[in-house]
Amino acid sequence: MFEIRTDLAVEEKESFPGKGREVNGVSLREWRKAFSKIKLTEVTILDEQGARAMGKPKGTYVTMEAKALTKGDEDYHKEVSAELAIQLKKMVKDLKKQKKLPDKKDIHVLAVGLGNPSVTPDSLGPKVLGNLLVNRNMDEGEDAVLSGIVPGVMAQTGMETAEILKGIIHETEPDMVIAIDALAARSIRRLGTTIQLTNTGIHPGSGVGNHRHSLTMESLGIPVLAIGVPTVVGAAAIVHDTIAALTGTLASHMETEEMGNFLDHLNADEQYQLICELLEPEFGTLYVTPPDIDQTVKRLSYTISEGIHMAFYPHFNVS
Amino acid sequence: MFEIRTDLAVEEKESFPGKGREVNGVSLREWRKAFSKIKLTEVTILDEQGARAMGKPKGTYVTMEAKALTKGDEDYHKEVSAELAIQLKKMVKDLKKQKKLPDKKDIHVLAVGLGNPSVTPDSLGPKVLGNLLVNRNMDEGEDAVLSGIVPGVMAQTGMETAEILKGIIHETEPDMVIAIDALAARSIRRLGTTIQLTNTGIHPGSGVGNHRHSLTMESLGIPVLAIGVPTVVGAAAIVHDTIAALTGTLASHMETEEMGNFLDHLNADEQYQLICELLEPEFGTLYVTPPDIDQTVKRLSYTISEGIHMAFYPHFNVS
Amino acid sequence: MFEIRTDLAVEEKESFPGKGREVNGVSLREWRKAFSKIKLTEVTILDEQGARAMGKPKGTYVTMEAKALTKGDEDYHKEVSAELAIQLKKMVKDLKKQKKLPDKKDIHVLAVGLGNPSVTPDSLGPKVLGNLLVNRNMDEGEDAVLSGIVPGVMAQTGMETAEILKGIIHETEPDMVIAIDALAARSIRRLGTTIQLTNTGIHPGSGVGNHRHSLTMESLGIPVLAIGVPTVVGAAAIVHDTIAALTGTLASHMETEEMGNFLDHLNADEQYQLICELLEPEFGTLYVTPPDIDQTVKRLSYTISEGIHMAFYPHFNVS
Amino acid sequence: MFEIRTDLAVEEKESFPGKGREVNGVSLREWRKAFSKIKLTEVTILDEQGARAMGKPKGTYVTMEAKALTKGDEDYHKEVSAELAIQLKKMVKDLKKQKKLPDKKDIHVLAVGLGNPSVTPDSLGPKVLGNLLVNRNMDEGEDAVLSGIVPGVMAQTGMETAEILKGIIHETEPDMVIAIDALAARSIRRLGTTIQLTNTGIHPGSGVGNHRHSLTMESLGIPVLAIGVPTVVGAAAIVHDTIAALTGTLASHMETEEMGNFLDHLNADEQYQLICELLEPEFGTLYVTPPDIDQTVKRLSYTISEGIHMAFYPHFNVS
Repeated sequence: MFEIRTDLAVEEKESFPGKGREVNGVSLREWRKAFSKIKLTEVTILDEQGARAMGKPKGTYVTMEAKALTKGDEDYHKEVSAELAIQLKKMVKDLKKQKKLPDKKDIHVLAVGLGNPSVTPDSLGPKVLGNLLVNRNMDEGEDAVLSGIVPGVMAQTGMETAEILKGIIHETEPDMVIAIDALAARSIRRLGTTIQLTNTGIHPGSGVGNHRHSLTMESLGIPVLAIGVPTVVGAAAIVHDTIAALTGTLASHMETEEMGNFLDHLNADEQYQLICELLEPEFGTLYVTPPDIDQTVKRLSYTISEGIHMAFYPHFNVS
Repeated sequence: MFEIRTDLAVEEKESFPGKGREVNGVSLREWRKAFSKIKLTEVTILDEQGARAMGKPKGTYVTMEAKALTKGDEDYHKEVSAELAIQLKKMVKDLKKQKKLPDKKDIHVLAVGLGNPSVTPDSLGPKVLGNLLVNRNMDEGEDAVLSGIVPGVMAQTGMETAEILKGIIHETEPDMVIAIDALAARSIRRLGTTIQLTNTGIHPGSGVGNHRHSLTMESLGIPVLAIGVPTVVGAAAIVHDTIAALTGTLASHMETEEMGNFLDHLNADEQYQLICELLEPEFGTLYVTPPDIDQTVKRLSYTISEGIHMAFYPHFNVS
Repeated sequence: MFEIRTDLAVEEKESFPGKGREVNGVSLREWRKAFSKIKLTEVTILDEQGARAMGKPKGTYVTMEAKALTKGDEDYHKEVSAELAIQLKKMVKDLKKQKKLPDKKDIHVLAVGLGNPSVTPDSLGPKVLGNLLVNRNMDEGEDAVLSGIVPGVMAQTGMETAEILKGIIHETEPDMVIAIDALAARSIRRLGTTIQLTNTGIHPGSGVGNHRHSLTMESLGIPVLAIGVPTVVGAAAIVHDTIAALTGTLASHMETEEMGNFLDHLNADEQYQLICELLEPEFGTLYVTPPDIDQTVKRLSYTISEGIHMAFYPHFNVS
Repeated sequence: MFEIRTDLAVEEKESFPGKGREVNGVSLREWRKAFSKIKLTEVTILDEQGARAMGKPKGTYVTMEAKALTKGDEDYHKEVSAELAIQLKKMVKDLKKQKKLPDKKDIHVLAVGLGNPSVTPDSLGPKVLGNLLVNRNMDEGEDAVLSGIVPGVMAQTGMETAEILKGIIHETEPDMVIAIDALAARSIRRLGTTIQLTNTGIHPGSGVGNHRHSLTMESLGIPVLAIGVPTVVGAAAIVHDTIAALTGTLASHMETEEMGNFLDHLNADEQYQLICELLEPEFGTLYVTPPDIDQTVKRLSYTISEGIHMAFYPHFNVS
């Protein structure tokens, strides 16, 4: 059966009835930097109860939202890169406090560009790696050591990404993985305007094309940060949302007794059940993406690679 | 406002109430070659009445349908290429009869690869041109003379495709254009399994990404054949179809009086109107595409270029 | 027969015996901006005598040289972009003075990305066009109007680039062409470190892959500025230079009478004749290029597109 | 210092004075299949003496030579694919006899596409992997199990290819590696017309761009077959050969006493020493490649992937 899902914790949180109301085991914090157009949201899933409610593992999910990211404004992208660097460094600091990372300057970070380079909306990860400056092969005394890999997708390699990464980690012994991935969102408003950074890694079924398996501290043995940008909306999500909006509108416009009766039948579960029956099985793999997605992915791949440079190379640092 | 549309005449025909019933001014013919898995359909729009009913210009639309096209079977693709060549040669012969093409062997054909090479589902045209063997620059005594151009999209050139082509036609004087384009379908079942060949050219608003203008005998001065393969379904089409299916199911499952009243309100026009109101304006530009679209486009670009080779180069001919 | 050639006027000038000595009909000016690492050279071919001596048409050739261009330093590239903008604007101003361009703010410039996008060292032009922001399709009241085309190479289109451009110019009526092209140099030191800007257009046999025909005011009817960067050295040039160096070294090291006699025989013409006999005919089409040419072309394509933006869009202007 | 080298054992053999004469420790066998235009050569380096003389490790090097490979003839490519499959299967059989491979039908082969996908002449390996059908992720009961990886180049990953492969081998336990790589040849005649298959793996300094390290049974722990096609000639090789031809010609044309004296001085070692002094240090990394290398690499990547399919998938088998 197809999935109506989002890879963004912030959207999962919003989907709870009575938006803003508390979910047990989940904390939410929103803020804006002074003079900045970036809205930050931090969703923290505190315990198993929260994880079950959210359908996502325990951990921290920081979202940077910026409408202007869809535009080509270079200065603005630098501001977002700088904010990404700040959040990345904060997560690294927390991992050191928790003794999950060694407390040394020159930690070795393996950057992983997930996704299929040949499918535009799924090519964010490979494109970020294309821009990333690695230094493990040099001896430059940088604060951090960066290496990087584009593992490809299972249909092309015959291997799970986790197998490839476990092997490389076994051999090159990085301290941490940063995985970059294209995500699926619920709302088309999020496409190309939101960056999510999480310390929970990559989870089965996330990402574009549904080909991801688990890449986490449990499966890989070292901490996994994940940077993601939604580039698609699941087709099923759009159908679901439209029908919800349709029935809502019908209810408010018609206000007849019959509609009331009809809407009683059309509760959320039944609605969902019906859509599942109606849609063909392969529908769940289809996605919706805007026609200018190539430009969006290209621009954001620079924004993210610059953010990683700023976080790990001192000469890129923001004050 | 967004459009619920299909670029396939065969789907437009199917959408008429009472499938199979006659539409005035439109003729339909379906057949299968012996021993072949290809289903052929020829929709002919005979007059203005048919054109209005179908929302497409007068002319012939031949559809080759073959489920197996989504597979990598090489022999099968050759069979489809050969069938495409047969249909292409038939259309060329008809154009000669109608005196729209000179009755000589060495007609000069300008192949045009429409679409955006950087957006996977829109890259069919440029990819076909990448495989096409042109010979205008050689002196090989072939039956036909082939030249080819990938004009790009307006956002990258600042020019309409028609302007670029008119200029090139003015200068190089081809006898005919064959435009290759990625199409939008209504049904996800059609994605990558159907090739449409038409003698009506390219019409405003068709294709992926909505950036096409008119490329026809009227606008370019020479006949325009168009070869297209659906690679996307408009997101709006999917929403529309799902709601239609939903209300249908509700009606048959519930069979209550209220539903009847409700469905009276939910006639096709109203439904359409409601969806338009509910969906955000940018929604109309979104499209739905399968995750393996890159492989599909790559394979079909060979199938089509081989079909063109077989049609115009004698040493590629099928008996 | 293969050609030992350079597309850079500054190298042609250097090749004259007695470097620095005057060539009749050719003027040379070299300078450096204060605080800048860019070296500028202006070679002006004043008359037919100079044109014959230099093997290049009359006109102005400005060279910007900057070793650091091979590095990824972003600020430095901006400095070069700004200098390119200054030189472009100067040439436009001169064309207006000479009444070859209308004296209005909103001149319409057609940018042309020459070369084969699939061959790395020949892909500079197409890559610049990939970065270029055109505005002819918008109504933004910019100072200038930009459109752009990647015409492809004759082996893929069956048409000469000049035919394609003449057609587009006929149809869209730009005031001027700026052609961007990858060049062949004599010295490997120039690869990726030199930008040449000329008001003489593109000449037969120039560029990488030897597929260029004439694109000039004479052939296209409007002024043609050309921006080029050497990305290859002809293999024949390298052989020639090495042999010259070898015989020079032999002469100075051995200082025997026999060598003197031998070198008498090995004058420049005879040497050249011998090499031509020794090398296979296809040798002339081979080129030499460094292994990191992909990064070089990518970086320079940004530098050049930014220079064009700065020259023609006021909001990009440098003071 | 730069290297005058070839990755082809057959060229190394040819370079010995008195072509055809025996080299101790090296055996040579040449043959042609009846009715076939493919010339086969098998160079076997038998012992350490042969290895020292040839500058290549002990093992078998089979060369398939076919001028027509530079043409687009599809049938011809199939013939070469079939021959490659035959030779691959022979090497696999030999490895089983030597107990280096388990004697079972379903051996697991890891295909490795070496080289830089962004540099045309170095992109053969990645392109072959792009065409290769892997099946390790499926359960299709094929005779062999195929997986594949494009490890990238050290400048982009910060890791040695051997590290990446060791890790993946540790994790997925293949029985054998097949590495596909672009090679450097001595003679421009070989570019795109020769396929070398060897059971000795990949050796330091081989390939285009000089970025290879050792990938052998010793370094990876499992047998490594290597398939290579020359796509470049080292610039230094061309200079060296031309000078050799030049001095040869001078000697035969002039036949003066002085030339004799001169040529005494110009023995092979001295000549080589001189060239090394004359050429700039970075010269050694430059390579020579033909302008149509993109088409050559694209076509050959199909020929090779088809050969691998025929060798390991029974339904592709030739009789």
